[in-house]
Amino acid sequence: MKLRDFGIHEGISEVIATTISSTGKPNAAPIGIISDGKMYAIIYPNTHTYSNIKATKKLVANIVSDALLFVLSALGDLDEKEFYTVDEMPALRYADAWVLFECEKDGQDDTLIHLHPTKGKILRKRVRAINRGTNAVIEATIHATRYLATKDEKYLEWIAHYEEIVKKCGGAREKEAMKKLKEFLRGRYEES
Amino acid sequence: MKLRDFGIHEGISEVIATTISSTGKPNAAPIGIISDGKMYAIIYPNTHTYSNIKATKKLVANIVSDALLFVLSALGDLDEKEFYTVDEMPALRYADAWVLFECEKDGQDDTLIHLHPTKGKILRKRVRAINRGTNAVIEATIHATRYLATKDEKYLEWIAHYEEIVKKCGGAREKEAMKKLKEFLRGRYEES
Repeated sequence: MKLRDFGIHEGISEVIATTISSTGKPNAAPIGIISDGKMYAIIYPNTHTYSNIKATKKLVANIVSDALLFVLSALGDLDEKEFYTVDEMPALRYADAWVLFECEKDGQDDTLIHLHPTKGKILRKRVRAINRGTNAVIEATIHATRYLATKDEKYLEWIAHYEEIVKKCGGAREKEAMKKLKEFLRGRYEES
Repeated sequence: MKLRDFGIHEGISEVIATTISSTGKPNAAPIGIISDGKMYAIIYPNTHTYSNIKATKKLVANIVSDALLFVLSALGDLDEKEFYTVDEMPALRYADAWVLFECEKDGQDDTLIHLHPTKGKILRKRVRAINRGTNAVIEATIHATRYLATKDEKYLEWIAHYEEIVKKCGGAREKEAMKKLKEFLRGRYEES
């Protein structure tokens, strides 16, 4: 199979990984699929994605262009209705395509997961102009996860920067995504 | 016609506008199409795009996802072989879609051009995962045009920031785009 047809290119492709636990609970979280001759992802051991891959040796990469799904899956839990089942694995209903990967732990680096594509399906092809607001939500989401992990306030400044781009360039979906992102930040902040 | 099918959504869609001068010379330059109920663009009077629109009252919006085309059309001149002709207007050979707009100057604001879609064509639909490197090239291009206009060095710091993202996340096309961008900056800098 040609991964290019599924939207996965050289460099790092940002996708939403869906996995399932040994007890059958689905999970969704953004990951970067690194393609530089080999194909792999860096996944931290304290995550559901990691423990699920350890249990099943599988992940589904969902190719998604919707900023809100990235925010919800990075910072919270997706609603059950967002999932459906392909090959006994969870996948996202609103993805443009999915690819099922067999996962193999690296011999040396615990966080490095080698990815071997086994099958995939294209669900929706489209034309899409670049929207700087969509991109800004992705960047803000990455900074939000870093902030939550470190509480370093420099990440809040980055989020404020990207929020300005979303306000100027985003559509309703991107603005909703940024609103949710800030709700997550507030919620987590109050907990700590 | 539904502009959504052509990839133009609410918010600002970044496209490459192709226009033609009164003497028949084609031009390509990135513009943002603003859709907030009305549809318009802000175009500065000291540009080829502006003078061409003044002459012909038309522009073609090319929906493009290739970072290198944004850099080349923003900072330089596209090669003649990048163009072809639709309805006596230039369009870009490697666009995913094009839309022909009738242009109308605003009564009050000289830089505000109202856009009325008249026809369009979808050339290539695809699935595409988000690549932070592609987005970073677009941001760097915007900062490069601001730097060239103002010589304010804060824009160079932004470009350095986005260059790091391109190095980490981009593919060969994004890295080539960033290399070209820096060549343009050096060329322009040495001229001044």
